[in-house]
Amino acid sequence: QLDAALMIDQLRELGEIGVDVEAGGRTRIALSDEERAGRDLVVKWMRELDLDVQIDRIGNVFGTLRSASDGGSQRPLMMGSHIDTVTNAGALDGCYGVLAALAVVRAFRRAGVIPQRSITVAAFTNEEGIRYQPDMMGSLVYAGGLPVDTALNTIGVDGTRLGDELGRIGYAGELEPGAIIPHEYLELHIEQGPILEAENVRIGVVENLQGISWQQITVQGNANHAGTTPMQLRHDAGWVAATVATFLRELAAATGMTLATIGMLRMEPNVINVIPRKAVFSVDLRDPNEQRLQEAERHLAEFLTQAAEKEGVAITTERLARFEPVVFDSGLVDAIEASAKRFGFTHRRMTSGAGHDAQMIARIAPAAMIFVPSRGGISHNPREHTDDDQLIDGANLLLDVVLRRITE
Amino acid sequence: QLDAALMIDQLRELGEIGVDVEAGGRTRIALSDEERAGRDLVVKWMRELDLDVQIDRIGNVFGTLRSASDGGSQRPLMMGSHIDTVTNAGALDGCYGVLAALAVVRAFRRAGVIPQRSITVAAFTNEEGIRYQPDMMGSLVYAGGLPVDTALNTIGVDGTRLGDELGRIGYAGELEPGAIIPHEYLELHIEQGPILEAENVRIGVVENLQGISWQQITVQGNANHAGTTPMQLRHDAGWVAATVATFLRELAAATGMTLATIGMLRMEPNVINVIPRKAVFSVDLRDPNEQRLQEAERHLAEFLTQAAEKEGVAITTERLARFEPVVFDSGLVDAIEASAKRFGFTHRRMTSGAGHDAQMIARIAPAAMIFVPSRGGISHNPREHTDDDQLIDGANLLLDVVLRRITE
Ligand SMILES: NC(=O)NCCC(=O)O
Ligand SMILES: NC(=O)NCCC(=O)O
Repeated sequence: QLDAALMIDQLRELGEIGVDVEAGGRTRIALSDEERAGRDLVVKWMRELDLDVQIDRIGNVFGTLRSASDGGSQRPLMMGSHIDTVTNAGALDGCYGVLAALAVVRAFRRAGVIPQRSITVAAFTNEEGIRYQPDMMGSLVYAGGLPVDTALNTIGVDGTRLGDELGRIGYAGELEPGAIIPHEYLELHIEQGPILEAENVRIGVVENLQGISWQQITVQGNANHAGTTPMQLRHDAGWVAATVATFLRELAAATGMTLATIGMLRMEPNVINVIPRKAVFSVDLRDPNEQRLQEAERHLAEFLTQAAEKEGVAITTERLARFEPVVFDSGLVDAIEASAKRFGFTHRRMTSGAGHDAQMIARIAPAAMIFVPSRGGISHNPREHTDDDQLIDGANLLLDVVLRRITE
Repeated sequence: QLDAALMIDQLRELGEIGVDVEAGGRTRIALSDEERAGRDLVVKWMRELDLDVQIDRIGNVFGTLRSASDGGSQRPLMMGSHIDTVTNAGALDGCYGVLAALAVVRAFRRAGVIPQRSITVAAFTNEEGIRYQPDMMGSLVYAGGLPVDTALNTIGVDGTRLGDELGRIGYAGELEPGAIIPHEYLELHIEQGPILEAENVRIGVVENLQGISWQQITVQGNANHAGTTPMQLRHDAGWVAATVATFLRELAAATGMTLATIGMLRMEPNVINVIPRKAVFSVDLRDPNEQRLQEAERHLAEFLTQAAEKEGVAITTERLARFEPVVFDSGLVDAIEASAKRFGFTHRRMTSGAGHDAQMIARIAPAAMIFVPSRGGISHNPREHTDDDQLIDGANLLLDVVLRRITE
């Protein structure tokens, strides 16, 4: 039996950490003081459940409820997500998956049941990737997709070194990432998109996850006087960035599937009467189809080449993250669907638009995800919301899937 | 006889203050510590010439060489400009006009001549207007176009109050702005544009100055997840800003005369995987024709109204500066032209693209300007450059005009 009220309370308590009274929501960026406080709270809750807490070298936190037969080398059933946030975030993205997993383990503890297979709750480092790229970094390192030493040497948008910040907040563990290979991995998450709500469906059975392409583009033009420089003699880095934004919107509209976003832009010198000499901006491209994603990347590259020539500016691009679309394990997906059916929850199979740690863990173990609806499809926003009863349904479904996978 | 070498030396010495070794040029923003150091140097040089130094309540600095008959109330012939800079600026914009004016006064001192009319050298506060808007603020206040108390209460882009910063750097004077009405006003300046160089002309006789319209535009959209939010459900403030940039380029191209620049842009939250909830940016519109400038403003306003409706965002605009085109005094313009002819300098009449203090002083006294060429038409850039011999020609021309105006 799941203690739903406690899970909801814990979501609220964790959500208090990093609250931004002025701009709304909470800002608990990876490896900040706020995130450290969040980690401390989760570790405290893990210890209260008498779990075996381990931290690995990239700072991933694991709390394991050991089976009787586990000498330490058994492959556990793993559930997890992350507790870092974007700027002015909601309280659910990531945290829900971690605290629901703790609620599942708590149900075992309360029932006095030692499971037949060890169960691990994971909170992965730096899933959001807004300070250090790529995103899903902790799970990527864990799955062997990025050497831990490379990850530790990542320089953030604020100029800090990830390894230094990890040490500073006291979460540079000793465990080698990937030392514990999960038997299976389940991640419960809010949808963060509008589909479930629009179709009035309670549960999303996530069978795949779209590809993600992150680039940073730098346009180097010429600063000059806004009042004296004829339009045709300008090399305006800001204007070139603007044409990329409008180009990307058309590119996305043309396929109807590709998503394109410029979330970050900085100009230099960024003053009212000086033509911008430099613009640095991010491009986030996504598509469930790898070939179409590659086409979008190619079209963008061609556009940049032409723009550089036509406008007399230099353009360089740096790849910040690139993940191919992922198809989740069909056995696990079927199991989630079967449980949803048994509960009588309306459900549908779907694609995840957001990146998730499950996508990385899928490289080393069967993985799948469960979604619950997001009100208004809003996420990465203080107004992110899912009703408590929907959160509780998701957690009960997770518990059911875990129980069946363990006894199977 | 003008001490040209000393003027060039002083330009170099003043140009050292605020040097940015990394990004190039110098940054001596109005009322910063660097600008205070620049002011101190200019005041020192004024005192070395035994000028009567006065500071007014908005921080304008005046150094007067008194005529024998001046009991303190005579209308002086005034020359001047400013010594504040944009970010990573050249060494000439403004400083040239102030130091050439000092060189003119020095020529009187060296010759032991007391002029028939007092001569005042002015260095006006905050001409560039990148920290506090509007630009040309010191001369605007001086000319009665903005109450001094309003100006002192201006809040800068860095959140500071102008009056506090003025007091902090020790340049909150007692003189009431406008207390000294000039008999005539002359401003020598680099062109900051490409025309003189392109036409191989030595001297620009500036007969008018285009209108300037500065606005700050705020687009309020919705933050949401870059990976889950379908393109058609977005309210992307950054993308709307980009469409304004491309619209303005078309608007400028349509008239062939209007100039349009977005020099400053900030987005919130400005992270890679979040659709921007907010974009704040500047629009700089210029045109020598007031009617066409108004049309540009109207077209922009219409575009914003439509964009707000179509994209479901809120758009607000704030006027930061608005100056109508100015026609300079024809008698003074003729006098400059006549002197240029006598020297045998190639010259042409022209419009100033940049705003200048002369444009404000023209409200209270006959005013005109002299331009010398800017290499490559480059200004507001560390590579701003005018050859020394061109600078010296300009200063000699200024001296000649002053001599003739004083004895006339
Ligand atoms: N779930 C989630 O918001 N992940 C962050 C990575 C991304 O998809 O941008
Ligand atoms: N001369 C000059 O650069 N003035 C600054 C005001 C403007 O932007 O025109």
